[in-house]
Amino acid sequence: MSFARNWLGILMMFATALGRLPHASADEGMWLFNDPPRELLKERYGFEPSDKWLEHLQKSAVRFNSGGSGSFVSKDGLVMTNHHVAADALHKLSTVDRDLLEEGFHAKTREEELKCVDLELNVLMSIEDVTERVNAAVKPGMSAAEAQQSRRAVTNTIEKESLDKTGLRSDVVTLYQGGRYNLYRYKKYTDVRLVFAPEKDIAFFGGDPDNFEYPRYDLDMAFFRIYEDGKPATPPDHLGWSKSGAQDEELIFVAGHPGRTNRLNTVAHLEFLRDVSFPDLLNIIRRREVNLRVYADRGLENARQAQDELFGYQNSRKARLGGLLGLQTPAIMDAKRQAEKALQEAVAKDPKLKDAAGAWKEVDAALAAWREMYVNYTLYERAMAFNSELYTVARGLVRLADETAKPNEERLREYAEAGLDSLKQQLFSEAPIYPALETSKFADSLSYLLEQSAGQNEADRDFALQLLANMSPADRAAQLVNGSKLADVEVRKKLAEGGTGAIAASDDPMIVLARMIDPKARAVRKQYEEQVEEPLRQAYAKIAQAKFAVEGTSTYPDATFTLRLAFGQVKGYEDQGQTYKPWTTIGGTYPHAEEHGSLPPFKLPKSWLEKKSKLDLETPFNFVSTADIIGGNSGSPVVNQKGEVVGLIFDGNMQSLVLDFVYTDKVARAISVHSSAILEALRKVYGADALVAELTGGK
Amino acid sequence: MSFARNWLGILMMFATALGRLPHASADEGMWLFNDPPRELLKERYGFEPSDKWLEHLQKSAVRFNSGGSGSFVSKDGLVMTNHHVAADALHKLSTVDRDLLEEGFHAKTREEELKCVDLELNVLMSIEDVTERVNAAVKPGMSAAEAQQSRRAVTNTIEKESLDKTGLRSDVVTLYQGGRYNLYRYKKYTDVRLVFAPEKDIAFFGGDPDNFEYPRYDLDMAFFRIYEDGKPATPPDHLGWSKSGAQDEELIFVAGHPGRTNRLNTVAHLEFLRDVSFPDLLNIIRRREVNLRVYADRGLENARQAQDELFGYQNSRKARLGGLLGLQTPAIMDAKRQAEKALQEAVAKDPKLKDAAGAWKEVDAALAAWREMYVNYTLYERAMAFNSELYTVARGLVRLADETAKPNEERLREYAEAGLDSLKQQLFSEAPIYPALETSKFADSLSYLLEQSAGQNEADRDFALQLLANMSPADRAAQLVNGSKLADVEVRKKLAEGGTGAIAASDDPMIVLARMIDPKARAVRKQYEEQVEEPLRQAYAKIAQAKFAVEGTSTYPDATFTLRLAFGQVKGYEDQGQTYKPWTTIGGTYPHAEEHGSLPPFKLPKSWLEKKSKLDLETPFNFVSTADIIGGNSGSPVVNQKGEVVGLIFDGNMQSLVLDFVYTDKVARAISVHSSAILEALRKVYGADALVAELTGGK
Repeated sequence: MSFARNWLGILMMFATALGRLPHASADEGMWLFNDPPRELLKERYGFEPSDKWLEHLQKSAVRFNSGGSGSFVSKDGLVMTNHHVAADALHKLSTVDRDLLEEGFHAKTREEELKCVDLELNVLMSIEDVTERVNAAVKPGMSAAEAQQSRRAVTNTIEKESLDKTGLRSDVVTLYQGGRYNLYRYKKYTDVRLVFAPEKDIAFFGGDPDNFEYPRYDLDMAFFRIYEDGKPATPPDHLGWSKSGAQDEELIFVAGHPGRTNRLNTVAHLEFLRDVSFPDLLNIIRRREVNLRVYADRGLENARQAQDELFGYQNSRKARLGGLLGLQTPAIMDAKRQAEKALQEAVAKDPKLKDAAGAWKEVDAALAAWREMYVNYTLYERAMAFNSELYTVARGLVRLADETAKPNEERLREYAEAGLDSLKQQLFSEAPIYPALETSKFADSLSYLLEQSAGQNEADRDFALQLLANMSPADRAAQLVNGSKLADVEVRKKLAEGGTGAIAASDDPMIVLARMIDPKARAVRKQYEEQVEEPLRQAYAKIAQAKFAVEGTSTYPDATFTLRLAFGQVKGYEDQGQTYKPWTTIGGTYPHAEEHGSLPPFKLPKSWLEKKSKLDLETPFNFVSTADIIGGNSGSPVVNQKGEVVGLIFDGNMQSLVLDFVYTDKVARAISVHSSAILEALRKVYGADALVAELTGGK
Repeated sequence: MSFARNWLGILMMFATALGRLPHASADEGMWLFNDPPRELLKERYGFEPSDKWLEHLQKSAVRFNSGGSGSFVSKDGLVMTNHHVAADALHKLSTVDRDLLEEGFHAKTREEELKCVDLELNVLMSIEDVTERVNAAVKPGMSAAEAQQSRRAVTNTIEKESLDKTGLRSDVVTLYQGGRYNLYRYKKYTDVRLVFAPEKDIAFFGGDPDNFEYPRYDLDMAFFRIYEDGKPATPPDHLGWSKSGAQDEELIFVAGHPGRTNRLNTVAHLEFLRDVSFPDLLNIIRRREVNLRVYADRGLENARQAQDELFGYQNSRKARLGGLLGLQTPAIMDAKRQAEKALQEAVAKDPKLKDAAGAWKEVDAALAAWREMYVNYTLYERAMAFNSELYTVARGLVRLADETAKPNEERLREYAEAGLDSLKQQLFSEAPIYPALETSKFADSLSYLLEQSAGQNEADRDFALQLLANMSPADRAAQLVNGSKLADVEVRKKLAEGGTGAIAASDDPMIVLARMIDPKARAVRKQYEEQVEEPLRQAYAKIAQAKFAVEGTSTYPDATFTLRLAFGQVKGYEDQGQTYKPWTTIGGTYPHAEEHGSLPPFKLPKSWLEKKSKLDLETPFNFVSTADIIGGNSGSPVVNQKGEVVGLIFDGNMQSLVLDFVYTDKVARAISVHSSAILEALRKVYGADALVAELTGGK
């Protein structure tokens, strides 16, 4: 299946889909649990979810703070997710002698379950609308800077009050790009233990070449367990297991945490993504991918150290390229333009909406400001010029000291009281740091700093040169990494306890560097918040209100890595004259390996070769559905109308990558591991009978 | 050996080497054969090369027009070069069923020798100084545009006259960035046949990770034979074979074709390379490397199609990164600044040199103009936005028709009469073209076009959009590649015969595209030639004259992919407290494979595993020397004082990559295959006794 040919199909699809873009339709939508698509579900499928049904699914869904989704699948706190969501934890638990990513893991008893280094899981317990309170803090006539500060203050305060009252992690979430604010309360689990993971060779069978492709043959699953007080914890709710698994054309639901979409963006904003953000990000991703691969290719241990991060860049590169290609497809942008024009015309006709008329120009102005500060924001606040775990720690410590010295309402969002525990979980992580890998990454990003600053004004150039301290990027990186003691978590804790005094007195070279950079990074962040973020929020709030008025409120906000409900059908598709069946079978795995010479990443693990004769080769392996998902949904449970697990989301096909901007169900598909394949593999390849019993409630 | 740590060594080295940078010293220099370093050789080594010695070496040296060097090594026209220089020819001779790169090749008889598709070899027969005639064409008071046109006219005329008179390929070569012009006459061979190549797994053992590293264990060699009238040809001269091969500390010589250096550049010009050219080129290289790898990883046949080009990008990426890191090393740039200042002060003191005083500012002005047109020149004239063999052919055909309709002296340089045969050799190459690979490359580069043009003015943006014809890059690429008939060489020849009329009438979509682009590409090229190239040439000619006056004439010009003589000693080195021996042994190859799990690219071919017990494991394999070489020197013979082959250049170490800008012999080393290893492998691994006999004159 050629990447190029697929796009002809998408183009044709959009050419005929212009009419229906503005409204939610078909199986579209990443819906809020407090505003589910009741009418749509009733109309299309005759299904009416009860409040209890929704609450059951909501409280069985889990967010992985490392990025991804999961679900509770037993009363004893078993958590199911993807292998690639678990990869970060697996990598951090691995050593030169034990590569859990490569070899997999199976705890045969509870005692063998491995405690993760810094994993935090969240369960959404309640949602409260705080739009009025947030908006009330912004008084008429306030400047954008004042509005931004007031909004931050009230947000930090709401979260702190909620934390004090409930003890739950409390996040104020911005929805509809500023059209609505909701307070999400999460139960938080930080003692999370690894129960089971298959070998990478079957979890990510087909590797980068097969990523975002279909047909697929991946056992992309892993299991963890939550603990409290050293004992397995009882989750708020958990999902049962379907006997039959997903059936063709069955209505299915996905509860997960889509990371980010840009469907409500104005056309000018999409053009900004197309012309500035995406190309810039892709250049960074490619250079990091190439640099990491060079590091990995030097030897087996290097490869082990780099593999998880390398996968991350490869995955982002493919996802972003798919998105960029969508933005570079005239039919998609033309459809967006028509929809925008229609909304603008409706706004112009309705005097009640005259506030919104200027919103598009406000977006343009914010983007113009954004362009101005883009390079500095990217280099210093996003810290793209300082690609190093140690630097991230150093900056975290410097900011922690400065921020916690301030009243809560004045702090930067991520240092507000309500989130400090989660922040420290990361900052004091025992995850290993590899000096040679650090040096390689840091050297490359310092070289990037020099390249980028060469196009800046003299003050910016001089600042960058100061950071290099009259050394080449490679020498400076080696000096910083070798000189820093921050790999030692005890050193970090001591510095954190010492507060601003300890930070000011530290001669750790990474701390010194972070101190040098921080004023500049903060300055450009302030600029960004006041000149970009806040104006965009205000403008989009107006556009969202206009949309509600014109198109009705039954719509959904862009994804924000918070819990959403998607739905759809298990369904194959046709593309370029080729038919794609709704699922692959376990038996198809073996010829797929052979067609690629059984060489990595198409090499099957020994376990799968040895147990082939025991497997029911007709068992469905991976299936496709029309559910509206995107990155962040990885690991989401797929459930049937009874709320039972029938699958496990792990990918979308190449054609689904435009879902960032617009929904389509013609050839875009979510890809899941079938629940039957999970049981079949656990039973027959891994002999994990206890786990199967726990999942199916048979024990 | 870590990349980062090496750089600390280089930094320290430059910190102590400031004083001796301006002058040729130590084993420095890529010398002209008509201006060899007689005094330096006598002084340092007591060696005085005779004219005959020089001529023998000159006429035994071979240039590969595909990029690289070689030498005649038998009276029957046997040519020795690197496997990686031969790779282009090997790739073009390969098919889905026969992968010559991977499997190697051995013609046991002359009849089995395989005729290459489009390879052209050149031998430098004579050098004539034409500086006065070229400069006389440029009259005082001429504008840069007029000067450029006059210079082009006289150059094309000199070449045509020489071709008519001698029948030899005749190139006017610009030396010292415009300080001198020489007419080089080459005997040309276009019937070149493949005799022997080892498997890629030993030729490029260690792959990208080991590339530009030492110690090394590569049998990076291949043999061709020149033919005339269907029979092996007798070359003008050929090299004998040393019995002992290279010895430690022995004086050795390298005759080859270094591609390009920038040692005479002004500091501002080096900064331009550092801040503009290199980063831009590296971004292009990285994106193409990533895109090609994605293509290659889809399957074994894809990998075969892409491997040669992929190696090219990996190699360029490493070389350019090494160069960029040199430019980003303050000690190197400081030394350059000091040397420039010293020269400028000498110029200011000498009234005879007052012409030169303004030259540095003229360079600055030309670079400012260059910056202005850089994007358009890169996109359209360099055709970075149209990465496709078919497009290259289409543009060649469009220009061939237009240019050959003009008088010789008005033509673009590469369409001048003297070079037409060589040009057609490429244009009508029977090398296979792979549609899916073409589409993938073209789609990526059209996406690049959109990204780049987004930052341009409206006219440029509109032009780019027109080229996309309201399609996404992928769809447009598929349409162009699938619609074009130019893969068929007969179609090309017919179009070429039909001249401008046939081109104008063609509806081949690639021809149509090339016709659309050409006016814009020609316009920016004209701008470049008049506002950048010619002013730079005039300014550098003045700087070169001043340098001759101040520092004496015993210096050498920057590399220009023309024949040069380098010299040096076989010599190990110390770096970061580690000692690197002058050579590795064949026996070291096996543990090097095992240390890397014997996985690709550290997997040895079957032949080497099977024949291990027969090999003399103490045989020197790869050795290092202080000879001053750079990319383009690959495949150069290394000879002793008797002019006998003692080795075969194939690489430089990482520390040698600064040689682009400045010579150093402390840790920078050229890497060669030892002549003894060549014989040992031919005899014992490949049973190529006839070849050994031919090399050693034993037959």
